[in-house]
Amino acid sequence: MDRQELINTAVGRKKAELVIKDVKVVDVFGGGIIRGDIAISGGRIAGVGSYSGETEVAGNGRYALPCYYDAHLHFESAAVRPCEYLRLTVPRGVTAYNADPHEIANVCGNAGVDFMMQDVAGLPADVHYMMPSCVPATSEDSSGARLSAKDAEEGRRKGLFGLGEMMNVPGLLGCDKDILDKLDVYDIIDGHAPSLGGNMLSAYAAVGVMTDHECTTAEEAEERISRGMYVIMREGSQAKNVRDLIGAVTAHNYRRFMFCTDDRNLEDVSESGTIDNCVRVAVECGMDPVRAIAIATINAFEAYGIKRKGAIAPGYAADFMLRRELTEGMPDEVYYGGVKVAENGVPLFEKRLCPDAGMRGTVHLPALTEADFTFPMRGTMPVIEVFPHTLYTKLSYAAGAEGLNVMCCIERHRASGEIGHAYVRGFGVRGGIAQTVGHDSHNVTVIGDNARDMFTAVKALGTDGGFAVAKDGAVIGRAELEIAGLMSGKSASDALKERKAVSEAVRRVCSAAEIEPLMLLSFLTLTVIPEVKLNTKGLFSVTENRYLYKG
Amino acid sequence: MDRQELINTAVGRKKAELVIKDVKVVDVFGGGIIRGDIAISGGRIAGVGSYSGETEVAGNGRYALPCYYDAHLHFESAAVRPCEYLRLTVPRGVTAYNADPHEIANVCGNAGVDFMMQDVAGLPADVHYMMPSCVPATSEDSSGARLSAKDAEEGRRKGLFGLGEMMNVPGLLGCDKDILDKLDVYDIIDGHAPSLGGNMLSAYAAVGVMTDHECTTAEEAEERISRGMYVIMREGSQAKNVRDLIGAVTAHNYRRFMFCTDDRNLEDVSESGTIDNCVRVAVECGMDPVRAIAIATINAFEAYGIKRKGAIAPGYAADFMLRRELTEGMPDEVYYGGVKVAENGVPLFEKRLCPDAGMRGTVHLPALTEADFTFPMRGTMPVIEVFPHTLYTKLSYAAGAEGLNVMCCIERHRASGEIGHAYVRGFGVRGGIAQTVGHDSHNVTVIGDNARDMFTAVKALGTDGGFAVAKDGAVIGRAELEIAGLMSGKSASDALKERKAVSEAVRRVCSAAEIEPLMLLSFLTLTVIPEVKLNTKGLFSVTENRYLYKG
Repeated sequence: MDRQELINTAVGRKKAELVIKDVKVVDVFGGGIIRGDIAISGGRIAGVGSYSGETEVAGNGRYALPCYYDAHLHFESAAVRPCEYLRLTVPRGVTAYNADPHEIANVCGNAGVDFMMQDVAGLPADVHYMMPSCVPATSEDSSGARLSAKDAEEGRRKGLFGLGEMMNVPGLLGCDKDILDKLDVYDIIDGHAPSLGGNMLSAYAAVGVMTDHECTTAEEAEERISRGMYVIMREGSQAKNVRDLIGAVTAHNYRRFMFCTDDRNLEDVSESGTIDNCVRVAVECGMDPVRAIAIATINAFEAYGIKRKGAIAPGYAADFMLRRELTEGMPDEVYYGGVKVAENGVPLFEKRLCPDAGMRGTVHLPALTEADFTFPMRGTMPVIEVFPHTLYTKLSYAAGAEGLNVMCCIERHRASGEIGHAYVRGFGVRGGIAQTVGHDSHNVTVIGDNARDMFTAVKALGTDGGFAVAKDGAVIGRAELEIAGLMSGKSASDALKERKAVSEAVRRVCSAAEIEPLMLLSFLTLTVIPEVKLNTKGLFSVTENRYLYKG
Repeated sequence: MDRQELINTAVGRKKAELVIKDVKVVDVFGGGIIRGDIAISGGRIAGVGSYSGETEVAGNGRYALPCYYDAHLHFESAAVRPCEYLRLTVPRGVTAYNADPHEIANVCGNAGVDFMMQDVAGLPADVHYMMPSCVPATSEDSSGARLSAKDAEEGRRKGLFGLGEMMNVPGLLGCDKDILDKLDVYDIIDGHAPSLGGNMLSAYAAVGVMTDHECTTAEEAEERISRGMYVIMREGSQAKNVRDLIGAVTAHNYRRFMFCTDDRNLEDVSESGTIDNCVRVAVECGMDPVRAIAIATINAFEAYGIKRKGAIAPGYAADFMLRRELTEGMPDEVYYGGVKVAENGVPLFEKRLCPDAGMRGTVHLPALTEADFTFPMRGTMPVIEVFPHTLYTKLSYAAGAEGLNVMCCIERHRASGEIGHAYVRGFGVRGGIAQTVGHDSHNVTVIGDNARDMFTAVKALGTDGGFAVAKDGAVIGRAELEIAGLMSGKSASDALKERKAVSEAVRRVCSAAEIEPLMLLSFLTLTVIPEVKLNTKGLFSVTENRYLYKG
């Protein structure tokens, strides 16, 4: 920072480079609103007061807010490249991200992480990539890559910000050497600990896991906060926890909360936003707007030890937005480092497309037949039950296939022929839905009520993968996700059109209106979230840490 | 940290090294009290819950609090060595200190700082020494040493924690090169900005000054907090600000406050404590005790970026105290790194006296006569007015010497013969009080109503300095401060006896009961606190930044 320039600008000895005249500045420290001009110099705020500048922007009494921080997300969940994601969310005032590229890492390993880093280089946002801590998520997973403590060290050298969500809780509690070695590499360690409590939660916090974004009840949140952890309130597409957690936020403890999206699909990102949406939901729940904004800004920057970001105050980075309404609607203007980077929802920066050839053609399936998708019921069988607004499932049992779908998880990295089968209740699919998105190993997941449509949908995925929907033996929806089978190589708007067409096709075959079928399906393979999940080997009980059956 | 050990202890797979059974744990994160056992391993807290240990201490339902942090102090103000200071305050539960050794630095330069660091080496406390930023305090001061930006860099190399209180506000605002260079050296920069406001305060904050401990009104505190600064509420011996600032603390902003003592004399340190006293005063003012404890603990550790200290939570350092009453009285036991270091007010650690020969014999006076202490009144003359509970003075005028004292400030580092004279109202001295403590240059300060007693007191200081009180031509009180003329080489208890004897002598010659005469006198030479002060050159108006007269 040029201290002389800042001093001369702040005291008014020198005209500011840029002044935003007459705005209502949200004071995240004091908790109120201060009316005045914002003076900016060298990308930093010199002062809030009465100023004149080389360039002046009329604030006209609009609100000025610091830009938002998404404390935990996977860009891959929006199924577009990170550079496209930023073009959607920077205009909403979100300019800081802790992004864990663990989806692409499960498919492409370190090369995938490098691709994600290159894709945002030079764009106007602070993208802090985390080192994926659990690739594969558990030892039972059939992923396309394995990342060890050595990779974690290499990741630190190449600039990764911290260790991403530590999902392998049994491994950590069992003192798995590779996990403890990974913890040693980073100061910043994110958590992922659904349902963990008591002394096991203490152990998890004691070794330096700082955060959890998997709380679903106020009690869970309070328990984590008492143990010194930060609670990241998530509002994803399927997992929506802000309403459930808001009761845990008090005047004393609010500084220990942040917001995140974790997994948010492209429609939601485009249409209702990300952290701006979290703030609105919190305000709808009765939270004071300035407190909600503080949670979305300064809390996260301070939690992650990032100085002079997250507030409109002297010496702070000039990352702010101008808004007519404090929390509703889109910002009129977004500034990053004192430069206007978006206006009325439109990004003013170009994407920088880095080469993606190495990320394509990642779907390797064995020769399949319709018979691979049949799963005859023999006596009473376990069933995965799904519910709206949560990634948790319940185990139930059924003696007949009535009202159930069949789901398959097909290994797709090495064409090994490994296929797991399960019954699922709650989707109501009549046809077949297939995708190459299946957390976290991203094998092919397919669900349906008949083997023909399921087979048809899977065949349609090709070698680039993506989404496919089939009905009556015909493909009725298809979107390519040619980058690692996870992200579209197209622009966000084109990808959104394709995605919407697929979603319409999904709605034609899926009657459960309360769930987000593609995202929920993609999580039915994640064996670190209770209660029962399907991987390529068989049906796995997360709570009992064992297979209910194989195959 | 040994993560495996912590995990095994936390989950109960292994007995803890130490368990404090059945305590009411103050939860500074959640804001409440949690009853349980504290399990400790490797100097860290593994968990709070139900535990058994190799060693068990009966908590018997007592309170367990994290240890306190004094966010800004000068050990020298208690006029004992730092190792002796710690023996008084660690038993009160204060185990973290940001100590600015700028008093000794003004006398002995870098060697003085080194002495202070060596004196606490190995003692059970986190003493973070700050680099004295303003030695001398201003360019007008006649100090024993000058420290430049080069010294600041050398200081960082030898482990200084940050840049100490930046008192030279006009120099900073004027972009003085040496000051800006010093700011570049450290991430942590403490402030000292009495009465600063508006755009000048913005400039001060913009260049990275983090804190201010000089607020005297709620409005000043609020203005600093809105600018992203931390406010350190001070309860010294003369300057007591907690009561005045408490109204500025809100549920939203409380995280931006800390406590400090700055300058606290030995009687007060011994009898009412330091940060424990701040907490009690805050609670007396109506603050929730857990919030006051959070301000005294986690707030300071987080503000200064110190991880895993300041709370009783998993992974945190086992620095805590056990108390019968939440805030009243002395802790029964104090633990540092899981080791008991004090019990019932008695330290369980030895002092480590480092050699102090280089710090002795620092008082170099010219040949003086009684005539040097006369200051005849000629017409209407400016007068320094002093008041209780503040270091601020006011300028007034008088045409006669009635009710006034004469004060002299005599250069004592180079025997240059420079002497400043002034009239003072508010002490009511009948006799003479002299000392080698005079902020920040620590020249000889003497006050009295007659030249003979003033001369007698000054003569009694000798070459080692200290305090001397004279009446009717005889020395009636004397305490040596043989280390730099600032600190006693004796034990705290012996120094306290001497100090009390001197204080009694002071009371015999000084009628103003509401002031702390020795400390207040020592600040009448500090030309960075408004409104009018005396140095060796003459009477200086701080507000006008000019001498009212010289000599």
